[in-house]
Amino acid sequence: MQKKPYVLGLDMGGTNSVLGVVDARGHVLARTSIKTQAYPNINDYVNALYDEAIKIVDAVGGMDLIRGIGAGVPNGNYYTGMIEGAMNLPWQSVPFAQLMTDRFGVPCKITNDANAAAMGEMTYGAARGMKNFIMITLGTGVGSGIVVDGKVVYGHDGFAGELGHTCAVRGEAGRPCNCGKKGCLEAYASATGVARTAKEIIASTTKKTVLRNLDIDAITSKDVFDAAEQGDEVAKQIFDYTGTILGQQLADFIAFSAPEAIVMFGGLTKSGHWIKDPVEKAMNDNVLPLWRNKVQVLFSDLKEADAAVLGASALAWGD
Amino acid sequence: MQKKPYVLGLDMGGTNSVLGVVDARGHVLARTSIKTQAYPNINDYVNALYDEAIKIVDAVGGMDLIRGIGAGVPNGNYYTGMIEGAMNLPWQSVPFAQLMTDRFGVPCKITNDANAAAMGEMTYGAARGMKNFIMITLGTGVGSGIVVDGKVVYGHDGFAGELGHTCAVRGEAGRPCNCGKKGCLEAYASATGVARTAKEIIASTTKKTVLRNLDIDAITSKDVFDAAEQGDEVAKQIFDYTGTILGQQLADFIAFSAPEAIVMFGGLTKSGHWIKDPVEKAMNDNVLPLWRNKVQVLFSDLKEADAAVLGASALAWGD
Repeated sequence: MQKKPYVLGLDMGGTNSVLGVVDARGHVLARTSIKTQAYPNINDYVNALYDEAIKIVDAVGGMDLIRGIGAGVPNGNYYTGMIEGAMNLPWQSVPFAQLMTDRFGVPCKITNDANAAAMGEMTYGAARGMKNFIMITLGTGVGSGIVVDGKVVYGHDGFAGELGHTCAVRGEAGRPCNCGKKGCLEAYASATGVARTAKEIIASTTKKTVLRNLDIDAITSKDVFDAAEQGDEVAKQIFDYTGTILGQQLADFIAFSAPEAIVMFGGLTKSGHWIKDPVEKAMNDNVLPLWRNKVQVLFSDLKEADAAVLGASALAWGD
Repeated sequence: MQKKPYVLGLDMGGTNSVLGVVDARGHVLARTSIKTQAYPNINDYVNALYDEAIKIVDAVGGMDLIRGIGAGVPNGNYYTGMIEGAMNLPWQSVPFAQLMTDRFGVPCKITNDANAAAMGEMTYGAARGMKNFIMITLGTGVGSGIVVDGKVVYGHDGFAGELGHTCAVRGEAGRPCNCGKKGCLEAYASATGVARTAKEIIASTTKKTVLRNLDIDAITSKDVFDAAEQGDEVAKQIFDYTGTILGQQLADFIAFSAPEAIVMFGGLTKSGHWIKDPVEKAMNDNVLPLWRNKVQVLFSDLKEADAAVLGASALAWGD
């Protein structure tokens, strides 16, 4: 019997849920979406998703060609298939994987976004062929997916890999983080972390900088990048500060799982060498000598528009 | 065919190499030892070890009853079976696992001491039945063995799990560590780390303390324990300082692999609740809310005299 050639990938966000049909080479053959918040009842959500999905699935040959569904879901638990306590979703505790499996008639596995991203990179992206790497997603928050021996690390409860909430700055000097702790990596390397760093550095210097012309409360890493490209010293200082904190943390992560590479995805990576150089320097300055200059720092090579669907879909190919 | 009932465990130290015959319940049936440094040639070492081993093996029924050999070896690489660059050994680069396999006629696997300790706890000790835990060994140095999904994490190169060299104190304030870095956990939680903490705290206070009567350069955690038991406030302060730093690091380790428990072994654990209480407090104060008060802190329950041989032997049972 020929193996089924396609999988479905679902990227469930607080606003939109995007579903795509994906082949083994990582091409998204078709995609569709529904509004996540339009369905206060989870069964209505699953039915609406199925109704949309079946249109694009039929267009590629029908459900008989679909091996399974992988879903990247806020607070998704790989072990239990439950979504529990996700703040941005309408449902508080639902057996999502089971509901999807029942409705679609093919197996559904779920995980959180960062673990899905790691699966995506391993299956189709920058980590193809690697068995040990760490994925870091730099967005509104900082997420991580850790791959050891070809498998995502889920830990005892399914929630392993929260490296955004390791401590970058100890004690009272640490910035407050959304999680309630202080000094987490996320408070420095997320989009809001970079914006805060920009604000602090601009306020602390009298140097000329084009960034001073912008709304100080709305500065993005893109603004800082544009300034750096024009030779703006303050912009470079912002990347150096951010990259140093991130690189120091990576050095500790290496001591944990001895990865072949760190793969980064998200907003900050668009700043290219401006962020990569200080990250690599701090990582190598702070890592044990046995790993110095031996661990690659890579950026995702998945198209941004496809990455989340691809990552989720990667779960569905199975071991 | 009846399964072979015994394994050999080798604990290779810089001074002594101890080898024991071990059964499946973790009883050391017989043991012997040779001087590690007496054999500048590795073949002579392996031959001498075999000659001693065969005596105790014959006493329990002969090599036909031995399933294999596990060895805990400084700088031992599980993947390659090589010992490379171990400072305290006479040999700089030797295919130790292969030499042992050839001489003894049964498979030999090697790993480093801390990973062996983790295997020992999982097979015979405090972590029996656990699939996700982190072993921390507190001795001259601070070592670690990380178990994910029932397997020790070796990483890309075989050297994963160097948590003693994650950064506990950032920047110039960090104590110099033997590895060349500053602020490593090992510089605070090892035997010399505790001695240094004692020295610093005693020098910084005018409080009465029995520790002031001791040779300030030779204080051990046992001395500090004895003082704490007598109600010595300075001794308690030393444990609080050490336990807080260790507990903070554990919180970050939990964010990595979401273990069911942290298992600790070595000198400091003999101080019982004096060290455990501040460790648990700092760990729970600094961990993400989802793991607060959910991760056990355990001490090894293997007899100290047997632990290293047992840990090594656990490797030989296979998957």
